[in-house]
Amino acid sequence: MAGHVAVVGATGAVGQEFLRVLEQRNFPFEKITFMASARSAGKPITFKGKTHTVVELKEDSFKGVDIALFSAGGSTSKQFAPAAAAAGCVVVDNSSAFRMDPGVPLVVPEVNPEDIKQHKGIIANPNCSTIIMNVPVWPLHKVNPIKRIVVSTYQAVSGAGAWGLWELEEQIKAYVAGQPIVKNKFPHPIVNNLFCHNSKVAENGYNEEENKMVFETRKIFHAPTLLVTATCVRVPVPRAHSESINITFSKPITEQEVREILAGAPGVKIVDDRERNHFPMPLESSNQDDVLVGRIRQDISQPDGCGIEMFVSGDQLRKGAALNAVQIAELL
Amino acid sequence: MAGHVAVVGATGAVGQEFLRVLEQRNFPFEKITFMASARSAGKPITFKGKTHTVVELKEDSFKGVDIALFSAGGSTSKQFAPAAAAAGCVVVDNSSAFRMDPGVPLVVPEVNPEDIKQHKGIIANPNCSTIIMNVPVWPLHKVNPIKRIVVSTYQAVSGAGAWGLWELEEQIKAYVAGQPIVKNKFPHPIVNNLFCHNSKVAENGYNEEENKMVFETRKIFHAPTLLVTATCVRVPVPRAHSESINITFSKPITEQEVREILAGAPGVKIVDDRERNHFPMPLESSNQDDVLVGRIRQDISQPDGCGIEMFVSGDQLRKGAALNAVQIAELL
Repeated sequence: MAGHVAVVGATGAVGQEFLRVLEQRNFPFEKITFMASARSAGKPITFKGKTHTVVELKEDSFKGVDIALFSAGGSTSKQFAPAAAAAGCVVVDNSSAFRMDPGVPLVVPEVNPEDIKQHKGIIANPNCSTIIMNVPVWPLHKVNPIKRIVVSTYQAVSGAGAWGLWELEEQIKAYVAGQPIVKNKFPHPIVNNLFCHNSKVAENGYNEEENKMVFETRKIFHAPTLLVTATCVRVPVPRAHSESINITFSKPITEQEVREILAGAPGVKIVDDRERNHFPMPLESSNQDDVLVGRIRQDISQPDGCGIEMFVSGDQLRKGAALNAVQIAELL
Repeated sequence: MAGHVAVVGATGAVGQEFLRVLEQRNFPFEKITFMASARSAGKPITFKGKTHTVVELKEDSFKGVDIALFSAGGSTSKQFAPAAAAAGCVVVDNSSAFRMDPGVPLVVPEVNPEDIKQHKGIIANPNCSTIIMNVPVWPLHKVNPIKRIVVSTYQAVSGAGAWGLWELEEQIKAYVAGQPIVKNKFPHPIVNNLFCHNSKVAENGYNEEENKMVFETRKIFHAPTLLVTATCVRVPVPRAHSESINITFSKPITEQEVREILAGAPGVKIVDDRERNHFPMPLESSNQDDVLVGRIRQDISQPDGCGIEMFVSGDQLRKGAALNAVQIAELL
């Protein structure tokens, strides 16, 4: 029993998903408080049939709170998570603020649940694309250490927040009505288009999302020399990220072995029907807890037999964010 | 001057693009004939301001025809291209029927124009995704031979034909109207979704589109041992295919070298503005002759300096099909 739970940023896309996941999993608690910025304070939130009032998030809000689920962006986490931790609360933070902090565990429960024990009041929830890749890749890595991953993503608009969903929706409507496509927060139109991920491009030429996939995976796997390269792309899909993953293992591996390992892996569901051309896709991974995995095949460009190709799709609001955080809270 | 030119399958998506490209490039000919199946015979076609009547395609249709541009599908090409060649006509065939035939040149004019000379009446136009990858990759391969390519595609619906465009359009309208999404020829809904390429999955686990990218590239590059792996995905974009391309060269190469080589490469336009997050995308590559190339960066997963990542986008009806075929005809 978690005692007093706080949800910080309950009105955002991930925050709303937090509520659904907490309800569906019947997460045990004695008291729940919804916190948000002054702007959203006073708003009503319905949870488990009861109406709660959002309270304003302040540094002294966490007295007596046991677990706080933060999904209000990096600057809010930076400002309030240390105060919450100092007040004795354990923060599960969905932002990128503390992920690469060596003192903060970065946890995918199917991969490194034991890291939770090292926490000093803050546990970081990884980036959504990272989680969706790590869940099916980790069980393979455990059996046959991975040398290199080349991943290309097909990321849904809701990964950017509730506004991303709204922006796609508005542009679809404008397109059908024959009206001009108005872009708002995305740098380019998204309806009938796609573009490289709308995060800042770093010194190394990789955008932030790509660097997260590379460096977070190394931290989660405790594999500081694991080679990863990523290309992250935003596509006109509302929900669920898909990823084309090419892996080089340290020893030869067959697609049959991969299938057997993944058939027993937690959080993974194999969808790989070659006959009927039925593979993972956002339409079917949306609102699912499991990451769908398919197109499992021997990589013909690695004649030494050490290569595997696969295609995965997972709900980035759910396993990619809220579910993963609630799973961490459950482990606490 | 080409004398008598025939366009076979003028009413399809690529056929219509043929007409636009022939007009825009002012392709020189004395006479032009539009041919199609009995079903479409008699239909009017407007070309260069004149109305032509589609004539029925028969085996004896090619007497006196100098060049025939075929874009009517593999079975039509298999049935009629040999008869056309036997009548002394040179066929530029956009189908996959003859591409891997060792006696038939497979040509991307920017890559292997000299192969045209070997023709025995039929020249094959490569697969659209293959052409769009080969145009920017070949100039790099010439300077620093490529060992391996890992490519993931983001392919537009019109690559499937005019019906693909129609199907996306109908599903977008149904979505906005709140009506059920009806799939027709695609195996899955495409609006707000994406799925692995809708071609048959072969014995090796790769679908036909992926195998085309692998084996056609080897033939076009005259590089039978070149290692290529591809994952082909259909996305809700009307026109223009995009591709995430990871390359391993035989010697170290810098992103600056790649930029310099591509700046002078035919058929390539660099769009790579990190500051403004402006990279190749279908919205801007549609209706363009050039393949847009960006996200050029050193692959951090290849510490020996032999790796490059890039993201490209090209119009698959244009450079991926009609333009490439007309360029071949121009070389004739």
